[in-house]
Amino acid sequence: MKNNAAEIYRSIEAIRFKAPVVHNITNYVVMNNTANALLAIGASPVMAHAPEEMEEMVNIASALVINIGTLSERWIYSMFKAAAQARKNGIPVIFDPVGAGATSYRTKTARELVAQEPPAIIRGNASEIMALFDDQTKTKGVDSAALSDDAVATAQKLSETYNCVVCVSGATDYIVEGKQIIQVMNGHPLMTRVTGLGCTASALCGAFAAVEKSFLSATVKAMAVMGIAGEMAAKKAAGPGSLQMHFLDNLYCLSEDDIRKRLKVEE
Amino acid sequence: MKNNAAEIYRSIEAIRFKAPVVHNITNYVVMNNTANALLAIGASPVMAHAPEEMEEMVNIASALVINIGTLSERWIYSMFKAAAQARKNGIPVIFDPVGAGATSYRTKTARELVAQEPPAIIRGNASEIMALFDDQTKTKGVDSAALSDDAVATAQKLSETYNCVVCVSGATDYIVEGKQIIQVMNGHPLMTRVTGLGCTASALCGAFAAVEKSFLSATVKAMAVMGIAGEMAAKKAAGPGSLQMHFLDNLYCLSEDDIRKRLKVEE
Amino acid sequence: MKNNAAEIYRSIEAIRFKAPVVHNITNYVVMNNTANALLAIGASPVMAHAPEEMEEMVNIASALVINIGTLSERWIYSMFKAAAQARKNGIPVIFDPVGAGATSYRTKTARELVAQEPPAIIRGNASEIMALFDDQTKTKGVDSAALSDDAVATAQKLSETYNCVVCVSGATDYIVEGKQIIQVMNGHPLMTRVTGLGCTASALCGAFAAVEKSFLSATVKAMAVMGIAGEMAAKKAAGPGSLQMHFLDNLYCLSEDDIRKRLKVEE
Repeated sequence: MKNNAAEIYRSIEAIRFKAPVVHNITNYVVMNNTANALLAIGASPVMAHAPEEMEEMVNIASALVINIGTLSERWIYSMFKAAAQARKNGIPVIFDPVGAGATSYRTKTARELVAQEPPAIIRGNASEIMALFDDQTKTKGVDSAALSDDAVATAQKLSETYNCVVCVSGATDYIVEGKQIIQVMNGHPLMTRVTGLGCTASALCGAFAAVEKSFLSATVKAMAVMGIAGEMAAKKAAGPGSLQMHFLDNLYCLSEDDIRKRLKVEE
Repeated sequence: MKNNAAEIYRSIEAIRFKAPVVHNITNYVVMNNTANALLAIGASPVMAHAPEEMEEMVNIASALVINIGTLSERWIYSMFKAAAQARKNGIPVIFDPVGAGATSYRTKTARELVAQEPPAIIRGNASEIMALFDDQTKTKGVDSAALSDDAVATAQKLSETYNCVVCVSGATDYIVEGKQIIQVMNGHPLMTRVTGLGCTASALCGAFAAVEKSFLSATVKAMAVMGIAGEMAAKKAAGPGSLQMHFLDNLYCLSEDDIRKRLKVEE
Repeated sequence: MKNNAAEIYRSIEAIRFKAPVVHNITNYVVMNNTANALLAIGASPVMAHAPEEMEEMVNIASALVINIGTLSERWIYSMFKAAAQARKNGIPVIFDPVGAGATSYRTKTARELVAQEPPAIIRGNASEIMALFDDQTKTKGVDSAALSDDAVATAQKLSETYNCVVCVSGATDYIVEGKQIIQVMNGHPLMTRVTGLGCTASALCGAFAAVEKSFLSATVKAMAVMGIAGEMAAKKAAGPGSLQMHFLDNLYCLSEDDIRKRLKVEE
């Protein structure tokens, strides 16, 4: 697999050209930013959660992103419905277990979803990923936690059990498929001071998975693009407010050259 | 009707002076931006959806904006309740059929609302407007679709059937009342890369309808102001992130001169 | 009590160092901005509303912020549940009665919450605070209303009845505990053109209350920091769009010197 600048940029061009519909069932906090990030990269975001329209909405989508950031019973029902329809249609599901480990409700929901409707890609921080398997871990809220080797080991177990790609994100993102581990070292610490950039990363995985055959490659590309746009934004930003703004501008303007200069991927 | 710069600016001054309460039942994705746009133009936004408070909230409002972007049963119930109260109170209802045509749930809800509580103004993109009448049309998500003559024809049918103003928005906005068609050619392509600017347009229709006798004129003015603030923002913007920011700044600062220089209305 | 620049900055440093989890049950309109403001000041925001996870989420939090901006039955149930757990755990509850007085549903909910689970801090504009006691007052939407002496008198009654700190915010913020009244005169009129900065103020009260023993002092500090970051943002802003961005940047970068130069507190 070649995750070089030319390949990444080719995928961005594919997104811009095809404008794939990415259906998001995501949390209230980040809906606006997620939609804006998908528009900036060239995709067509849809946000919908009513059980009455789940199948039909999934039918027009090329990827489905499920994010449990603000849960409720009805939304969980829709998440399962949408995931089942995505499986029928053969479109990739990207799962973001926001806050798994913080409460048993989230942990339980996340585990059940993964077990019943195995996603194509799971993306979370170390403690969230570990909570999908390990009862010992405690999440402190939804911040990105210090990465441990344990998280990568859990990611491997998850990947093997459910035959999916798992991304443990943090200062370095570890993207795992079976025995293979790819590291993306792009990004900037200021990004952790903007709410929902993790959720945005999951949504971008959806956009790339909609135009890529390899979900491993789609995830690596999405995480690299996130990190690069974030680094470029951080250079211009005076704080987290302007970082969010520049980030969207950069996603929209990203050139092959921007990627080539900054890409830090280790396979 | 004179939709010239002086007249438009007079309406903005009326909004700034009266600060009309605009009650919004709108989708989760755009609530923040919608409220900010209403504040920037000088109105007083209220966002509320609980059936328990619908009548009372409508009672303090000068316009009601209903947007079906993220539907659920309970919210639909509140939409009907609020629209009925608005009719009783004689305040204008602005309806935004987000995603009508994308799922039958949306299409059905939108048609029922329009039929049971005909709004003063309907604003949507071509495919959404067509979905209010035509079972043949398919919406691709909620993006603005290529405008066809069909959409304007449907707008005329809608306008005549329900005695309302219909705005088909796109690169050119077609504002229709009965046989009359007014075109607004302001705006900028980058605006389609920011989520919810269509929803913002509907909300601004609410602000103008709150201070205008003619709903046709209110819609034309709102769409012109949207487009002009967007054009001015696009000139300064480096991408969709900064466009959204400049757009709000420009709405707030808009002068009669800004409007005069840029206004493109064709009656 | 010393609410000088050094003391305020010491509290900011405590927030940055401890990164306290602040649990918010707040309205859809402001969730994103609230989370971003908490991150910018150094806290760890959590947004969660499912009754199934209320106790557990409160258990990892150092403060709970309840905001009734967009109510519904289920959320009210969660608010009571979360407040009861916060009482058990001995963590402060900050209550923001958004729109109390506008509808009887809000007024009733707000009064019941305050009576059943007296918060540590109540923050609202004059009409909202008055609505917690006085049936005569009418709120015009959720804008900050002209402050009257009545509001401060009501705040004193509230403070004595429920043994809490009450902040009546406006051009001058009046922070009341029993007979004591402290005035914060920081802030800028343009801040009223950005949605949810009142809600942000309540959330910041939560961040300060999480690291301060005195809730009076926590509230004064939060309101001063709000006002100062807002003033600094207004100096750079071209309108409400850029004000919001600069505000977050300034919250993040705020230095002791920034505070010293601008602080206007009168005890």
